[in-house]
Amino acid sequence: MSGPLVSAARTDRCIRRKLDVTHGVLRVACLLASVTALSLMATAEESATVSIFGFSLPVYSKWSFSDSFEYLVGVLAAVAAHSLLQLLISILRLLRNSPVILSRNHAWIIFAGDQAFAYAMMSAGSAASGVTNLNRTGIRHSALPNFCKPLHSFCDRGAVSIAFTFISWFLLAASAVVDVIWLSKY
Amino acid sequence: MSGPLVSAARTDRCIRRKLDVTHGVLRVACLLASVTALSLMATAEESATVSIFGFSLPVYSKWSFSDSFEYLVGVLAAVAAHSLLQLLISILRLLRNSPVILSRNHAWIIFAGDQAFAYAMMSAGSAASGVTNLNRTGIRHSALPNFCKPLHSFCDRGAVSIAFTFISWFLLAASAVVDVIWLSKY
Repeated sequence: MSGPLVSAARTDRCIRRKLDVTHGVLRVACLLASVTALSLMATAEESATVSIFGFSLPVYSKWSFSDSFEYLVGVLAAVAAHSLLQLLISILRLLRNSPVILSRNHAWIIFAGDQAFAYAMMSAGSAASGVTNLNRTGIRHSALPNFCKPLHSFCDRGAVSIAFTFISWFLLAASAVVDVIWLSKY
Repeated sequence: MSGPLVSAARTDRCIRRKLDVTHGVLRVACLLASVTALSLMATAEESATVSIFGFSLPVYSKWSFSDSFEYLVGVLAAVAAHSLLQLLISILRLLRNSPVILSRNHAWIIFAGDQAFAYAMMSAGSAASGVTNLNRTGIRHSALPNFCKPLHSFCDRGAVSIAFTFISWFLLAASAVVDVIWLSKY
């Protein structure tokens, strides 16, 4: 190969390596964020009493009582599994010194996966935060109490978990953009 | 130009035209879906009475009483505006017989817009459906009533509006994929 061709091939390999490393960093961060969110949410439960119109009612709150929180836990677990799997595949390929993304079809599959999980994450995070917000503000249809006053530790744990969910979503969305950059270059 | 080059240029123009038409169709459909969802949601209100522990409480529900529904209406309006704007730009360019997507940078901007609005749509739809679901099933923290029994017309309208929101999300997500196809080809 002549000089310019060799240097073009080297630049090309350098860009690919940079994209691979970016992908790897995003995957590790996404895995950490989703596992944190998952463990916070899956351990959230609290019991207290609340008084409505003078009646003292026992309230007990657990993540599995709300469909939205169950959905969030399911999505977080799926995203953590997806990130771990992609990370392991990448590490194996890097150790063998082969490229992480093998072909355009492979890049499309990874893009589709990242995109689908990013939408699912956004959906689960939003549904859960809608419900948490409703718990916090009470229901404006009528004079109902604010559930987060007696159950503040439950609500706070939920809020932190949702924050990590959105961090994890952002990292997945960034992965999808890296996939598009790959697709647009090769 | 020689024969093969001319035919390659013709194939290329044919692919671009196909992508432009696909984009246009997706935009029109997305505009219709989001306007339908918007008009259904923005006109949703109902009043009724509900009895809790023997007390008869007046309940009046309007979309603007819930933060999630307000957010949904905002996002739907933004998506409708985005779709209409992109559609008008496309039609103007097609009438002048110039390509709809001018450059790679332009394609990246359209991709970013579609992607951001698709995430916002998914988020708004999920938050609203989380709240509607909570209204429908009642709150499992304690023995509270099902708000959708007295307010069934409000709840049904909300559910149909949310269904159109998800249709509109799907069309935006499809637009983003068309953008990625464009970016991966040119």
